[in-house]
Amino acid sequence: MSKVLALSGGVGGAKLALGLSRVLSVGELMIVANTGDDFEHLGLSICPDIDTVLYTLSGLNDSVRGWGVANETWSFMDQLKQLGGESWFQLGDRDLALHIERTRLLQQGHSLSQVTLHVAQRLGIAQAVLPMSDDPVRTTVHTAQGDLPFQHYFVREQCRPVVSGFSFAGATTAKPLPALLECLRSDALEAVIICPSNPFVSIGPMLAIPALREALQATTAPVIAVSPIVGGQALKGPAAKMMAELQLPVTAAAVAEYYGDVLDGFVMDACDASQAGAITAVPVCVTQTVMKSLADREQLARDVLAFAGTLA
Amino acid sequence: MSKVLALSGGVGGAKLALGLSRVLSVGELMIVANTGDDFEHLGLSICPDIDTVLYTLSGLNDSVRGWGVANETWSFMDQLKQLGGESWFQLGDRDLALHIERTRLLQQGHSLSQVTLHVAQRLGIAQAVLPMSDDPVRTTVHTAQGDLPFQHYFVREQCRPVVSGFSFAGATTAKPLPALLECLRSDALEAVIICPSNPFVSIGPMLAIPALREALQATTAPVIAVSPIVGGQALKGPAAKMMAELQLPVTAAAVAEYYGDVLDGFVMDACDASQAGAITAVPVCVTQTVMKSLADREQLARDVLAFAGTLA
Repeated sequence: MSKVLALSGGVGGAKLALGLSRVLSVGELMIVANTGDDFEHLGLSICPDIDTVLYTLSGLNDSVRGWGVANETWSFMDQLKQLGGESWFQLGDRDLALHIERTRLLQQGHSLSQVTLHVAQRLGIAQAVLPMSDDPVRTTVHTAQGDLPFQHYFVREQCRPVVSGFSFAGATTAKPLPALLECLRSDALEAVIICPSNPFVSIGPMLAIPALREALQATTAPVIAVSPIVGGQALKGPAAKMMAELQLPVTAAAVAEYYGDVLDGFVMDACDASQAGAITAVPVCVTQTVMKSLADREQLARDVLAFAGTLA
Repeated sequence: MSKVLALSGGVGGAKLALGLSRVLSVGELMIVANTGDDFEHLGLSICPDIDTVLYTLSGLNDSVRGWGVANETWSFMDQLKQLGGESWFQLGDRDLALHIERTRLLQQGHSLSQVTLHVAQRLGIAQAVLPMSDDPVRTTVHTAQGDLPFQHYFVREQCRPVVSGFSFAGATTAKPLPALLECLRSDALEAVIICPSNPFVSIGPMLAIPALREALQATTAPVIAVSPIVGGQALKGPAAKMMAELQLPVTAAAVAEYYGDVLDGFVMDACDASQAGAITAVPVCVTQTVMKSLADREQLARDVLAFAGTLA
């Protein structure tokens, strides 16, 4: 059974998941990705957070562009525009292979978790990478311009609309992945790491599944979140903008408060050390959380695991 | 209404269709493509003959490779192989845009003819390009290795199995495209050109639709086939190999005999002039039919149209 469970959204979360995968032995780490931003587009089933984790763990990711696959080409999009197709969501030619193969396997009746494990294996990833649920959960962003499916908000509208809240269609009836519940109930589990992902739209969909939230509260392993807010900003994505629009302080402390009683510990960046005293609900670990290099990813993984050891 | 109707399979037929499109005025030509070799692959609706006609007429075709799109890239196939997907059917990145967009439009409820006209328009093609029917017709090749769906025979098995016959699932109930029947019944129609395509698997599926065969027999316009067999060989594809395996003489005359009472005239290459006397059922035009250059395509188009004028 896995010793460490990492809950991840996209780019930021996948960085720490990669660090964890490199400091833990094979079989010790399970990575569970958000599926709230999955969507169907051009007839394809697209799972952006799962894909980012898969590409990051396999080393196929484009670290310069920050998303998608390295050595990507764009002939498909170029031609699709000529045909008048929907071109607001960029799909690289290499990336397309994953979407087409996944869509085909799902249509054959395989579950999303089976497909994800299959792809991870084909890409040479030794760790278990899984969706939070095989049941669809779909994030809607409530904005001043109306309700938007997540990718319409995130990609098509480039996060411009002012956010007033979120809903997660399917979450209340979605079953957490059995392997995930089993992991959370296992005595072997030593830590649950909520990676530095967007609390609202990357981790929020997981917490919106009642049985998953309960299992996180009930697990005997310490649940530790790493703040995605550093120095009042999100390193990537709209988390800080969302907090401001939701009238929340744009601070690491506000992230800890959002997670509430799910948490047993909180990791924040050294630059926010002055806020550490404001967090009284759980122990706080202050360290370097900005992951620029591979060494940074590994060091943060070690720091978080060491912190978990003190909470056991 | 169209003055000329061209019936085409893939590469060879599309060459003459291109020639016809350049010597006729806009609105004078309707091109109808075979759909017997259409298939569903990786969840996509693929129509190889329609695509070849579209790429050829739009000038997007790769004239060096002989199929698909020029300036093609192959990142998708490369990545699909890494994922363990089915890779026997080559799908270029640019080509994929057409399959994905068509599949999406078909799933939205548009007919294949609507989608084909839409794509033709987007690609700047002034002529009407249409499928023979909106109803699916699927060619099966009967071989010594058993029955094979057409693309399995043609691409996966590279035409190696010995052929004993063909069947065309759906043909007896398929409705010819109404615009095609209307064209064949029109007084404005001056010629029907059966392009130099494979008689069995490119034109055969059209003739297997009873109402289409009857309409070809009933039309007042002369129906003229151009032989795909030149000097005992097919310029492209398995037509000659199939004729040998079916115990037919591999000659232009045998092609004329295969078309039988559908024909009002037959065009064969000058190198086969000695066989012209063997064809007694219909008038024969002997000319240069090998289309290497664009000028060749235009000249053959002119020759065929002039021949049609003598039969009117």
